[in-house]
Amino acid sequence: MAATVFVSVSMSLDGYIAPEPVPPEDLFGPGGQDDPAVGPWMAQWMELQQWILPLRFFRENLKLGEGGEEGRAEDIARETFARTGASVMGRRMFDAGELAWPEEAPFHTPVFVVTHKRREPWERPGGTTFHFVDDGIEAALARAREAAGDRDVRIAGGAETILGYLNAGLVDELSIALSPVLFGSGVRLFEGVDAGRVALEQVRAEPTQRVTHLTYAVRDR
Amino acid sequence: MAATVFVSVSMSLDGYIAPEPVPPEDLFGPGGQDDPAVGPWMAQWMELQQWILPLRFFRENLKLGEGGEEGRAEDIARETFARTGASVMGRRMFDAGELAWPEEAPFHTPVFVVTHKRREPWERPGGTTFHFVDDGIEAALARAREAAGDRDVRIAGGAETILGYLNAGLVDELSIALSPVLFGSGVRLFEGVDAGRVALEQVRAEPTQRVTHLTYAVRDR
Repeated sequence: MAATVFVSVSMSLDGYIAPEPVPPEDLFGPGGQDDPAVGPWMAQWMELQQWILPLRFFRENLKLGEGGEEGRAEDIARETFARTGASVMGRRMFDAGELAWPEEAPFHTPVFVVTHKRREPWERPGGTTFHFVDDGIEAALARAREAAGDRDVRIAGGAETILGYLNAGLVDELSIALSPVLFGSGVRLFEGVDAGRVALEQVRAEPTQRVTHLTYAVRDR
Repeated sequence: MAATVFVSVSMSLDGYIAPEPVPPEDLFGPGGQDDPAVGPWMAQWMELQQWILPLRFFRENLKLGEGGEEGRAEDIARETFARTGASVMGRRMFDAGELAWPEEAPFHTPVFVVTHKRREPWERPGGTTFHFVDDGIEAALARAREAAGDRDVRIAGGAETILGYLNAGLVDELSIALSPVLFGSGVRLFEGVDAGRVALEQVRAEPTQRVTHLTYAVRDR
């Protein structure tokens, strides 16, 4: 049985999945908060992720402490985590995460990083191992599929990596937590999408307290 | 009791409310179909409007004949029509509509056209009268409010007109029929939005057969 390859991201109503980029060292490194762009970046990021930050799942997974919200949003976050047997991400997402994630990185599965630089696998406590794949997105996906077994493969980000898989016809499902916020600028999810190739079929739309969870099956046109 | 000022549009998942513009004479004028951009424009437009074209309401209102789909989408279309006491639109939307609408224009209420050119009111059979307002968007809205009585005012389009009202803090409610289609290019609804001013509150999200109907209250930040 082939695993489903899915994307699951939070998106602003005007189509952004991240604020205008700021160097990750400034966001997450020591002393970087002197960059005046950091405050607005964090504020936008928190509005975008407003549905996930208060959840019990999120607090547990990032070791932020006890408590947190329960309910349908919590269930959706846990279902997404539980179905994921392996993740694929771009090199820039990894570089930022390397600074931002706690020592126990929040994946708890193999993660395949699409990169041009060879590097030995990097094993973290808690079950996350990062593998660095330097022979293209298809090779990274093949390795993720194998590692995922009968669970699904998540294309984690960033936008350029997601779009690469989408335009190559390699994504089966697109799941978007649509946040009630307008960014006006930032990183667009669909910038450069091959609209002549990618067709969508609406599968589900479910509002929770703060956002609307949209699920689409992805088809070739 | 002040009327609600609302926007109700269909939007692609990547944020477009119209395909890349084509001269309206080519779209709707005689012989214009020689423009090779017309076919793709029509195809995208129909995908965007896929939820409304098959409805009984739409067929009746544009005099396309008997029959048509019933159900929740039909109810939503009828509710939107019934609440609207007056509409406001930009000059380019009017110019295109003047070519496209049947003699009995589909508004059946006063419509206020924001323009720089004076023109006498233009009365159509069936209750639509177009009034041309040359002293700005606030004046057009004030006249529409007065004409609407205790019904609501719809800012009908196009994107630039909607954005003008949104950025001026004059819109109370944003209603979007989110179509499962990616355009890749075209006319973006939120291009140039004043993200530091416009805040949204999620009110409702309801999938029907083909699209998801999203409703937001608009607030000042």
